[in-house]
Amino acid sequence: MLLKNCSYIITQNPKREILRNADVLIEENRIAQIGKNLKDEEMIDCSGKILMPGLINTHTHLGMHSLKGKSDEAELFDWLKSISNEEAKLTPKKTYENTLDGLREAIRFGTTTIYDSYKFSDARLEAFEEAKVRGVISSTVNNAETLKDSKKFLSGLKSKLVKGAIAANSICNCDEETLKKVIEFSNSKKLLRRIHVGETRKERYDILQQKGKLAIEYLDSIGFLGKNCLLVHCIWITKGEIRKIAGKKAKVSHNPVSNMKLASGGVMPLVEMLEENITVGLGTDSVASNNNLDMFEEMKTAALLHKHHKWNPKAITSQQILDMATIKGTECLMLDDIGSIEKGKKADLITLDIEHNLKPINDVISSAVYSANGLNVSDVIIDGKIRMEKKSLLF
Amino acid sequence: MLLKNCSYIITQNPKREILRNADVLIEENRIAQIGKNLKDEEMIDCSGKILMPGLINTHTHLGMHSLKGKSDEAELFDWLKSISNEEAKLTPKKTYENTLDGLREAIRFGTTTIYDSYKFSDARLEAFEEAKVRGVISSTVNNAETLKDSKKFLSGLKSKLVKGAIAANSICNCDEETLKKVIEFSNSKKLLRRIHVGETRKERYDILQQKGKLAIEYLDSIGFLGKNCLLVHCIWITKGEIRKIAGKKAKVSHNPVSNMKLASGGVMPLVEMLEENITVGLGTDSVASNNNLDMFEEMKTAALLHKHHKWNPKAITSQQILDMATIKGTECLMLDDIGSIEKGKKADLITLDIEHNLKPINDVISSAVYSANGLNVSDVIIDGKIRMEKKSLLF
Repeated sequence: MLLKNCSYIITQNPKREILRNADVLIEENRIAQIGKNLKDEEMIDCSGKILMPGLINTHTHLGMHSLKGKSDEAELFDWLKSISNEEAKLTPKKTYENTLDGLREAIRFGTTTIYDSYKFSDARLEAFEEAKVRGVISSTVNNAETLKDSKKFLSGLKSKLVKGAIAANSICNCDEETLKKVIEFSNSKKLLRRIHVGETRKERYDILQQKGKLAIEYLDSIGFLGKNCLLVHCIWITKGEIRKIAGKKAKVSHNPVSNMKLASGGVMPLVEMLEENITVGLGTDSVASNNNLDMFEEMKTAALLHKHHKWNPKAITSQQILDMATIKGTECLMLDDIGSIEKGKKADLITLDIEHNLKPINDVISSAVYSANGLNVSDVIIDGKIRMEKKSLLF
Repeated sequence: MLLKNCSYIITQNPKREILRNADVLIEENRIAQIGKNLKDEEMIDCSGKILMPGLINTHTHLGMHSLKGKSDEAELFDWLKSISNEEAKLTPKKTYENTLDGLREAIRFGTTTIYDSYKFSDARLEAFEEAKVRGVISSTVNNAETLKDSKKFLSGLKSKLVKGAIAANSICNCDEETLKKVIEFSNSKKLLRRIHVGETRKERYDILQQKGKLAIEYLDSIGFLGKNCLLVHCIWITKGEIRKIAGKKAKVSHNPVSNMKLASGGVMPLVEMLEENITVGLGTDSVASNNNLDMFEEMKTAALLHKHHKWNPKAITSQQILDMATIKGTECLMLDDIGSIEKGKKADLITLDIEHNLKPINDVISSAVYSANGLNVSDVIIDGKIRMEKKSLLF
């Protein structure tokens, strides 16, 4: 398959090159060639379009899709209470349907890889396989029973596009024994392990009181941090904790829209994290607190929040933000071979129509981060296969 | 013209009613009837769509459209310097083209009324007339010469859809004599008068040093505040200044995306303004600092910013935000008969496709404010005439 005459190609290669009026040839599921005047029988005309890597959503719960708009204007703990009543009603079948609806929305918005954590993992996996979306799936672990469920799911997982991960809910929701088993299991299987941490001040003080340590210090003390560790939220952490994350090469998922909407207060210290070379990706969190799965919106909101917070328009650049939504997201999820347009990488690609809101293009990275939204996405290719063509989903 | 079988109608009437599966009949340029089983020869099928009032953008500079993405990551004063070099190159013809491009983007995003202030007003008026968009146009006044230009434009302005206004640039850019002439002229002609104020801390301290008064106190002392006064930005103001604005019934245009992107610091005290019953509308400001004209994005960003800022998810509701983008915007611009769907009001209406990101709808106001973006807009009707049909612009 040949993507012909792309008006712009945002490669996200190590040099962050932008190509004009160039072609990308896909063979099997990989990018075979990038250049001009390439030829192939199957061709997609990409003139008037921007080609870029598909976006990577490092944190969501697609199973909650039917809860969109169900509990707006509520604080995290009130929200959790109200939403958990709704969640109790979800069956595996409804969770499958919700996940499929979520995947439809995510792909419509140009996301090609999704980290999804929730209950009923088999039902969710079925939806991922049906949609043919790249994913990382985990069952949320709160205790011995859910740990058992999680291990069972992971041991049975055989998929071309979906990898497994193990997800501890949070320090307050998992006892130390469970957390240690999560660490042990993920290390032995070389799996990603993930945890929600630092979303609210309350959690921070509760942990300090219970453990006598700051949240990240506590996680470090039990061996949770590491290269295969993804920390979600990290709003309420100190510079010392940032240095611990950096020292252990743990990764961070930043979810600004959900954090702002739930009014968790504070701002994740993104600039300080980047100064310490921490790998930070972006995530939407669930539609129950976002209220959509638009990674383009997430990119712009992240930029606005940190420029505003630091009173410094240079605090974060459009290129850094795009990196978080592509190549850095890949690193967060321990995935190889995606996140950029380079020869030999897997073909997870999207095109954007250069519609009114993207005209004129003076700086195509700025256009993608500050002017676009998810509905500009026209075509979505995952693992070399078209999943959306001219804004029509193929599943 | 009959808008048939609208799945949802967000009326924004005084009771803020939501109607299901109802019709709206337009006769000439007004809403003639709202109900069920209405009949007319010309019909638009609105099943699967949300019908709502067109959005009101209370502050932008469409003439700068070609400068989109030209100077990102720069502080206001550096930005002004860099952008003003670009602006110097703009001819009346380019300003006309830019304005028309801006109107295309704005209508594509469901905005039906725009307050636009810039130079070359005749050229911009020509674009508004060509697009058949409702507008308020002013020439920016800095001194005696631009005041003369502005008066000349206003005295010649005869338009069905466009009203005039008079726009003082800012306290620092206009001497007191000019400001007083703006006040006198707008009062005598019953015109809206507008000014940028409180966008940066620097401006605030400069004014305090020059005038010995806070910005709003100074404007009050020379008679600038009043029912026909629109204050743009108002980030750096005190509670005392808020009370002065409220006392004189002046209006405020809030531009959160541009303010955050330029890192003007601080947050406009929206909650405090609403407590004093000040009329606040929303605006995008220009694409050189936004970088688009999406009033849906402006709504969501406004909600996120104030919930976040106040550490309170109840700080502002989706209904209050929608009011700012519709009926309150109308009041800001001293326009009658638009901003809501009621019998007898002018037919400025938009439909949204209930695409993936709007499914499911548990609360249609939440869907419009938190889940939608401007590209969900399908049809746009201004003054009873279709300007966009099924996402295709008719000009």
